[in-house]
Amino acid sequence: MKLPAGYTVVEESAEDLHRREAPYEELAQAVRELGDATVRTLVAPGEVSALTEQVRAVTERLRREQIEGGYGNRVTPDRVVVNQGNATTGGRNMIAPPLRIECQEDRTVTTRFHLGAVYEGPPTFVHGGVSALILDQVLGEAAAAAGRPGMTGTLTLRYRRPTPLGWCSAEARLESSSGAKSIVEGVIRDAEGTVTVEAEGIFVLPRWARESPGVGWTEDPARRFE
Amino acid sequence: MKLPAGYTVVEESAEDLHRREAPYEELAQAVRELGDATVRTLVAPGEVSALTEQVRAVTERLRREQIEGGYGNRVTPDRVVVNQGNATTGGRNMIAPPLRIECQEDRTVTTRFHLGAVYEGPPTFVHGGVSALILDQVLGEAAAAAGRPGMTGTLTLRYRRPTPLGWCSAEARLESSSGAKSIVEGVIRDAEGTVTVEAEGIFVLPRWARESPGVGWTEDPARRFE
Repeated sequence: MKLPAGYTVVEESAEDLHRREAPYEELAQAVRELGDATVRTLVAPGEVSALTEQVRAVTERLRREQIEGGYGNRVTPDRVVVNQGNATTGGRNMIAPPLRIECQEDRTVTTRFHLGAVYEGPPTFVHGGVSALILDQVLGEAAAAAGRPGMTGTLTLRYRRPTPLGWCSAEARLESSSGAKSIVEGVIRDAEGTVTVEAEGIFVLPRWARESPGVGWTEDPARRFE
Repeated sequence: MKLPAGYTVVEESAEDLHRREAPYEELAQAVRELGDATVRTLVAPGEVSALTEQVRAVTERLRREQIEGGYGNRVTPDRVVVNQGNATTGGRNMIAPPLRIECQEDRTVTTRFHLGAVYEGPPTFVHGGVSALILDQVLGEAAAAAGRPGMTGTLTLRYRRPTPLGWCSAEARLESSSGAKSIVEGVIRDAEGTVTVEAEGIFVLPRWARESPGVGWTEDPARRFE
């Protein structure tokens, strides 16, 4: 099987890989907390500078052995794709909430997540671009869950009202498909369940993926690692 | 001057505030590096767990004194708005590259930025939602730079080709405006200058801002803090 750049075939199962990744996910969670504290701290500059040195020392130790470039996709023997570095779902990625996207029986996808201080745009509200970031992923997962995986071709977002920082949810489902194109719709809701952002996306399966089934995603969404 | 939630009037100038923020910006930059290392490290789990404890200890010290909620907007006496917590431009925010957006003489805005491993979507490429996050901010700044500030009403993204991780640039300008609505167009380019994503946004000035000129943004974009 010839794989594009950034794909690595691993020998272990998704379960084993997940187990082995746990300490790295805990580190990422600690970094998320650190990032939140960095936005919000009122501690004096002198102490902050001393703490900055400690952070740099941790980074230096982590970098002693590291992969070239991003995490990329790991493909297990049963073709489950794992990307712990993904900007929205990656367990190792501090900028990912991370989203845990669930596929329902009717093949809609849903997710509930918390957005704190680092996701702020207008004061007290989620940055409009953060909503776009999340919806791009959720809509893409809905296309995949319906057996129509693809890359984003067009994404249209309608901002109905500001989204307060805090607990939010999102959901999406495939509306229609034709040839290599799929149309997906989804929304973000605030903590009260009110729709704040609506999205429509057109997803397109690239030629290389059409010619290499199973690369880039698994055929069965229920077997997806995350 | 009555201010909405999340706005704070400060007594110091933008320059003084900027100077006082420098150590916090250095901490945020160190956290960005730590986040990159967290995605990419190959260091053994045992050592990673020990380093996680060190990160948690730093966070605990930063949290001894912290603001409630997000950073919000600080408004200086000459009405420059500073949001060091903004998810795209905030100097204190680890998830912001951060963007440094420049307003040109013709009131187009431009920015050049580096996207590393934490911005990954498809292997070796920028997450489509990250491009959306950046374009939402850049288009909004273009509206403001042209004297037509507003909140995002609609944002449409067309993905022309994948954006490789690495150095990128973005630019945007006001195309037209009518009443409280402005139409802005912009693009992201890869390191070679090729357009990878096109965006069109409709920005709307909310009523409360129309009734309180100068709150939420300064009238003169050249005086914007960032």
